[in-house]
Amino acid sequence: MAKDIASRLNDYSQWYNDLVIKGGLADYSSVRGCMVIKPYGYAIWEKMQAALDKMFKDTGHVNAYFPLLIPKSFLSKEASHVEGFAKECAVVTHYRLVNDPNGKGVIVDPTAKLEEELIIRPTSETIIWNTYKNWIQSYRDLPLLINQWANVVRWEMRTRLFLRTAEFLWQEGHTAHATAQEAVEETEKMLDIYAQFAEQWMAMPVLRGKKTANERFAGAIDTYCIEAMMQDGQALQAGTSHFLGQNFAKAFDVQFLTKEGKQEFVYASSWGVSTRLIGALIMDHSDDDGLVLPPNLAPLQVVIVPIFKTDEDMKKIFEKCEPLIRELKAKGISVKFDDDDTKRPGFKFAEYELKGIPVRLAMGMRDYEGGTVEVARRDTKEKSSQQFEGVAGYIETLLADIQKNIYNKALAFRDANIREVNSWDEFLKQIEKPGFISAHWDGTSETEEKIKELTKATIRCIPIDNPQQDGACVFSGNPSKERVIFARAY
Amino acid sequence: MAKDIASRLNDYSQWYNDLVIKGGLADYSSVRGCMVIKPYGYAIWEKMQAALDKMFKDTGHVNAYFPLLIPKSFLSKEASHVEGFAKECAVVTHYRLVNDPNGKGVIVDPTAKLEEELIIRPTSETIIWNTYKNWIQSYRDLPLLINQWANVVRWEMRTRLFLRTAEFLWQEGHTAHATAQEAVEETEKMLDIYAQFAEQWMAMPVLRGKKTANERFAGAIDTYCIEAMMQDGQALQAGTSHFLGQNFAKAFDVQFLTKEGKQEFVYASSWGVSTRLIGALIMDHSDDDGLVLPPNLAPLQVVIVPIFKTDEDMKKIFEKCEPLIRELKAKGISVKFDDDDTKRPGFKFAEYELKGIPVRLAMGMRDYEGGTVEVARRDTKEKSSQQFEGVAGYIETLLADIQKNIYNKALAFRDANIREVNSWDEFLKQIEKPGFISAHWDGTSETEEKIKELTKATIRCIPIDNPQQDGACVFSGNPSKERVIFARAY
Repeated sequence: MAKDIASRLNDYSQWYNDLVIKGGLADYSSVRGCMVIKPYGYAIWEKMQAALDKMFKDTGHVNAYFPLLIPKSFLSKEASHVEGFAKECAVVTHYRLVNDPNGKGVIVDPTAKLEEELIIRPTSETIIWNTYKNWIQSYRDLPLLINQWANVVRWEMRTRLFLRTAEFLWQEGHTAHATAQEAVEETEKMLDIYAQFAEQWMAMPVLRGKKTANERFAGAIDTYCIEAMMQDGQALQAGTSHFLGQNFAKAFDVQFLTKEGKQEFVYASSWGVSTRLIGALIMDHSDDDGLVLPPNLAPLQVVIVPIFKTDEDMKKIFEKCEPLIRELKAKGISVKFDDDDTKRPGFKFAEYELKGIPVRLAMGMRDYEGGTVEVARRDTKEKSSQQFEGVAGYIETLLADIQKNIYNKALAFRDANIREVNSWDEFLKQIEKPGFISAHWDGTSETEEKIKELTKATIRCIPIDNPQQDGACVFSGNPSKERVIFARAY
Repeated sequence: MAKDIASRLNDYSQWYNDLVIKGGLADYSSVRGCMVIKPYGYAIWEKMQAALDKMFKDTGHVNAYFPLLIPKSFLSKEASHVEGFAKECAVVTHYRLVNDPNGKGVIVDPTAKLEEELIIRPTSETIIWNTYKNWIQSYRDLPLLINQWANVVRWEMRTRLFLRTAEFLWQEGHTAHATAQEAVEETEKMLDIYAQFAEQWMAMPVLRGKKTANERFAGAIDTYCIEAMMQDGQALQAGTSHFLGQNFAKAFDVQFLTKEGKQEFVYASSWGVSTRLIGALIMDHSDDDGLVLPPNLAPLQVVIVPIFKTDEDMKKIFEKCEPLIRELKAKGISVKFDDDDTKRPGFKFAEYELKGIPVRLAMGMRDYEGGTVEVARRDTKEKSSQQFEGVAGYIETLLADIQKNIYNKALAFRDANIREVNSWDEFLKQIEKPGFISAHWDGTSETEEKIKELTKATIRCIPIDNPQQDGACVFSGNPSKERVIFARAY
């Protein structure tokens, strides 16, 4: 236990909370279930946004913004959608406060009641498809490839910082297409972008798959997902992409004139990732000393800690490091020279470990005179003495190496903890161990629900390109054509 | 009248709405007072955000995110704040919907009533200062320089696209300081950044000034503002920056340990600009043919329209233009080659004029063969034939020239329409003409309110570095030390 952080082994859940709070990523707020995203946490979100936004734009999407508030009646236009979302909504009923006649602050003005209540968006399919109705007349208006960066509110009963909060930040893509095939291709393309982002930026390996009917988005024909394994072996759904068929087009009467001159309902996809990814990032890589951030998303990649007794020494070290700082910045590497003389180097080292800065340099007078610098990498905690001359190139390579190394580490952990299971007894034993189970399933919701009830494990996904093989359902013994992934999940 | 756009002279208000709707910037929504920001409008907002965000970060600010929902009791903690904001709020009273027992959609679950109502933030001083209480203990924690990009809701009775909507997007800076002087300096620094942004990016000249007590932000000691003159001569408040003194620190009990070991309340500033700026941008420069966008904020800066009869000709022109496109992109200039063969060049020209693309190139086969290209600038509508060789440099210079030209045009218009007025009769005459009035005022709220009542003109600001001169109040005749700016305003 370092810096009053719980250890992963003793109390995984407390360890996670300690990292979020003590790492300066987020804070609880006075509003039930809502969090404050602190500057360091928000800086990670900005990096995630920038990378995702570029990937969206490079694939032809544009951003727009739709209203926060949705008329209540919209939610019930798509039958299964309302079942999934209406139960957990923040409802606006009034539009004015007045001074309390008893002089105690303000009260809701009873005369300012809305004719129709408004719901704070839990997701925006309804308000967006109600708008698309006016934007789409002909096949020339298609495809419509729009994304929105926004906040949403879902009234969760049990909340956890980043992982499940009443309000969260996300992006939601909503596309409209002339054919089912195009909409499915879009759905799959966006899943692929999410997987690339998870693997290349977050250094987090993911399984790509489809959800079972039970776990589908409310209103979707098919829900695709990426699932990651956290260090405690539990699954975390990191992003979803939905093929919505014509469900929302029919609910909001969005038809278009085809090239052949017929009226047809439009096909849709929607897809989203949220600030939940920050929770995943933390849990995937960090250790008992603090955060371990992948260089591609670290708000600060390199920190230089001078070790000095006098101001004069500090100045010498700074002057020596100045060209290095310039060189690193020119390479697009973020770097900070920590000249704070109120904190000791040891304190700073611990602080930067807690914050997960990928590379830490330290230079004392002996290094200064000998032309060397100490380089410490956060992921493995290895330290080495390097020639100062040319160290910028070394750091650049090291950052790439760290990015790769933490991905490989997470991948090895995950692959070592997916176990094939072929009997119910074995399932009951294995599900108590950290990790995923790959097992045959008979394809029925009844079996899926029974397994969940008995073990708290859910089917995380039916992997894409899943090998087809004859087998018997691990629970019912009925015939099965493929294995699916079971796990307990966040 | 082009493209069914009303003319500025005949119907300024309709002209504005036509530009917003037909220019594809925004749309009305089904939710009272809320708009949809369409992709083209949102692209302008993204450019504004990027420029402002960089200016904020370059001056030491960081971004964070605070909850959308504010407990009702927070609003009344700062006495004048609640007076200013509580009257126009969206109030969340319930957190669940249930199926209507009569089978008609969903109804609010009466058992899911919140103990304390939550308000959708109209601005975030209260929730943020309630959070700062936990973040600030000592002078070492100061200054705290935080900005938030967010949506806010104010229940406006009369709304207009971009200019006044129930929900809008904005940024709100909230800073905490150890001394009043530092907080005032921050307030002034941010006003200066807003003015720079307006002038250098939006090409919109602004007056920097202070608001009168009447027009101050609810809870501020001093409100600074930038005010711009629209083409109809009305004023538009484009940004505000507030010195909040210790008001919010006292309301939320935010004290810090000074260097000298005493407990003292923290000093504050807050400052914001919003999507209202897009409305200002439109009204400041556009004409009867459509939008005129400053190159620095135009989502698309250059469009190339090939004029061709056969596919082969189009291909030839495209091949000729390809190196130019690459060269422009390398200079950071956005460019589109419009190869759509379903629309005629004349239609495209009108469309790009409507959209305000700063520079339009046209190339037909005669140009192709003669090594020339037609260059049209949107601001003056001048066209010229240019040598194709080296035209990238010409375009780069032209864009800078357009940026400067539309600023100078707006500046000349504004300066020609600020009139010094020295008598009440003259005031009554001049206020009916487009423009601002510079007149002496006796400094009392009574006079200010009376003038507003009689003429609908408000004091827009007391300019910064205002020359001091003895005079008599234009209304009351009482002594005055300086002139202030009166105008009717958006």
